[in-house]
Amino acid sequence: MRATALAGGTGAAKFLRGLASCTNPRDLTVIGNTADDADIWGLHVSPDLDTLTYALTGRLDLRRGWGLAEESFNALAAMAALGGEAWFRLGDRDLATHIYRTRALRAGRRLSEVTEAIGRALGLGVSLLPMSDDPVRTRIQTPDGWLAFQHYFVRDGARPPVIGIEYAGAGTAAPAPGVLDAIRTADVVIVCPSNPITSIGPILSVPGIREALHETTAVVLAISPIVGGAPVSGPAGDLMRACGLPVTAAGVARAYAPWLDLLVIDRQDSTERHAVLEFGAEPVLAETLLTDHDREVALARRVLEVLA
Amino acid sequence: MRATALAGGTGAAKFLRGLASCTNPRDLTVIGNTADDADIWGLHVSPDLDTLTYALTGRLDLRRGWGLAEESFNALAAMAALGGEAWFRLGDRDLATHIYRTRALRAGRRLSEVTEAIGRALGLGVSLLPMSDDPVRTRIQTPDGWLAFQHYFVRDGARPPVIGIEYAGAGTAAPAPGVLDAIRTADVVIVCPSNPITSIGPILSVPGIREALHETTAVVLAISPIVGGAPVSGPAGDLMRACGLPVTAAGVARAYAPWLDLLVIDRQDSTERHAVLEFGAEPVLAETLLTDHDREVALARRVLEVLA
Repeated sequence: MRATALAGGTGAAKFLRGLASCTNPRDLTVIGNTADDADIWGLHVSPDLDTLTYALTGRLDLRRGWGLAEESFNALAAMAALGGEAWFRLGDRDLATHIYRTRALRAGRRLSEVTEAIGRALGLGVSLLPMSDDPVRTRIQTPDGWLAFQHYFVRDGARPPVIGIEYAGAGTAAPAPGVLDAIRTADVVIVCPSNPITSIGPILSVPGIREALHETTAVVLAISPIVGGAPVSGPAGDLMRACGLPVTAAGVARAYAPWLDLLVIDRQDSTERHAVLEFGAEPVLAETLLTDHDREVALARRVLEVLA
Repeated sequence: MRATALAGGTGAAKFLRGLASCTNPRDLTVIGNTADDADIWGLHVSPDLDTLTYALTGRLDLRRGWGLAEESFNALAAMAALGGEAWFRLGDRDLATHIYRTRALRAGRRLSEVTEAIGRALGLGVSLLPMSDDPVRTRIQTPDGWLAFQHYFVRDGARPPVIGIEYAGAGTAAPAPGVLDAIRTADVVIVCPSNPITSIGPILSVPGIREALHETTAVVLAISPIVGGAPVSGPAGDLMRACGLPVTAAGVARAYAPWLDLLVIDRQDSTERHAVLEFGAEPVLAETLLTDHDREVALARRVLEVLA
C-alpha cells in the first residue's frame, strides 16, 4: 500500500514514527509544511522538515518535540553574550543542518534537493518532500500588525490575539517535484494530526494540491489534532477560531470537508461523530494521544486496519 | 605611552596578553591582520581578529592557540555527518561569533564596526582595528596552483611547497578607519612576534600603511618570531624562504628594514646582533618564548623598559 502523508511538525512526526515502524518506509511519501520556515541568524531554518527528518531517523528530542536529542546550546549562549538574537533556540548539532541547507540553497540548489540530501546523509528511509521549493510563509495578523509565524509562535509565545492568517507567496508557488504525483498515485493519503491552519493549511494553499486531493483515487484519511475540544499541542485553538472554525473534531472535518473520506477522532470526542459525518467524512474512533512509542504504533495500526 | 601594535594571531595574542596586563589597555591600539579571513560554511571567519579578541578577554584556548577555551565541537561533528566540509575546526561557541559577524556584514556594516561591536560585547579593553574593511586575501602559489591561505595552512597542513605569495585585493584596499592615525600618533609602534609574510606582510600591503610607518615619529619596535633559526610556530619558515628571506632574526630585520628602529631577538639568537644592525635596526636581547603567562608579562616588561 502506497501512502502519502501531509505533515506539520511534532504531532505528525510522532504519528509517522508509528506508521514507519509498521509499513515499508519505501512506500511512504511525506509532504512537509515549509510555511513556518524562517531566516534565523541569516540561516534557512525549516522546522517541520527537520522535525520529521530527526523523528524518522531516531534523532528527535521527544520530550521537547523539536530539535535533536542530547543537544547542546553553546552557540546560542555565545550568541546571547554577543547581544545577538537568542529567542529561537537553535542547538549546536541542529545548527549544522541549517548551515548545510543555507549553503546549498545559496549555491542554487532547490529546497527539495537539499531536503533529500539531508535525509540521505542521515539515513531517512521515507521520501520527504517539501510542499514547495518556492517560499510560502504563514503570517499572523495581530492587533499590533502582521507577524512572521515564528515571531508569533516562538518569540511571542503564541500570546498575541490572532485576527487573521495569510500564506504569503502561496499564489505563485508551485508544488515541489513529485508532490502532485505522490497525492494522485497513492493508495491512501493521510493528513497527519497537525495544526489545520498553520501546518496543513499552507500545504493546501499551494496551487494544484487541493485539486490533486479532489482528483486522487486514494482514500483520504485525516487524524484530528483536536482532542476533547483542545489541541494536543500548539496554538491550533486560537488559529482555528480566527479562521471561523470550531475547535473540535468537527471543525477539523469542516476544514478538510471537500476531499476528506475518513476522520480519525479521539475516543473522548465520540459525541462529535454525527457532526463529522455531516461534513461528509466517516468518523473513526481511536486513541490519538501519542504520549509514547507504543501509542504511536497502536494509532498507526488502527489507521492501517481501517484502511485495509 | 600610547602604543599601536601590528598583529597576527597566536604569537601576537600571547605577547599582547602580557602587554595589556602591564599597560593601560586604553592606550593600546591593535591593528589585526585580516588576510587569512575565509569563507567557511558561508560564514565570514576572521581568525586573527578572533584570536586577539579571545586572548585579550581571557577566552582563548591557550593550549591550541586558537578558538575558545572549554569549547565543544558538536556542530562540526554534525556537519561531518551530513557530508559537509569539516576540515576547518569551528567550535560551537566560536560559531556564534562568525554568524554574528556574517549577519552584520550582510546588513551592510563594515568589518571594523562589527569587530568593535564584538569586542565591546566581550569586554575587550584595547582598541582592535582590522587592517582594512576591504577584502585582502593571502594566496599561496604551489606546484599545483594557487591556494587560499586556509586551504594551504589548515586543510593541507602547510605541506605543499610554496613558490609564491600574493595579497589579493591589496592594491585597491584602504586602511580601516583609525589605522593610519593610530600609527602616526602613537608613541611606539610594536610589530608583534607574528609571521612576517602572512600576518604582518598583508598589513604592510594595504596602501598607506608602509608610508605611515615611515612618517611616524613613534619608535618602531618589532619582536622576532624566529628563534634559533626556526619559527616559534606555524609555516613562517617556508614562507620566508619563498620570499627570499633567510629564516633568521636578520631575515625579520630585512623584511622590516626601511622603517624599523628596534628588533627584539631571542637570547639564543645573540649571534645575529650584527646582521640585524646591518639592516638598520638596533637589536635587543630578550626571552621571547612565550610558554606561559609569566613569560608573556616578562617580555612585555622588557619591551617597555627598552622603550622607556
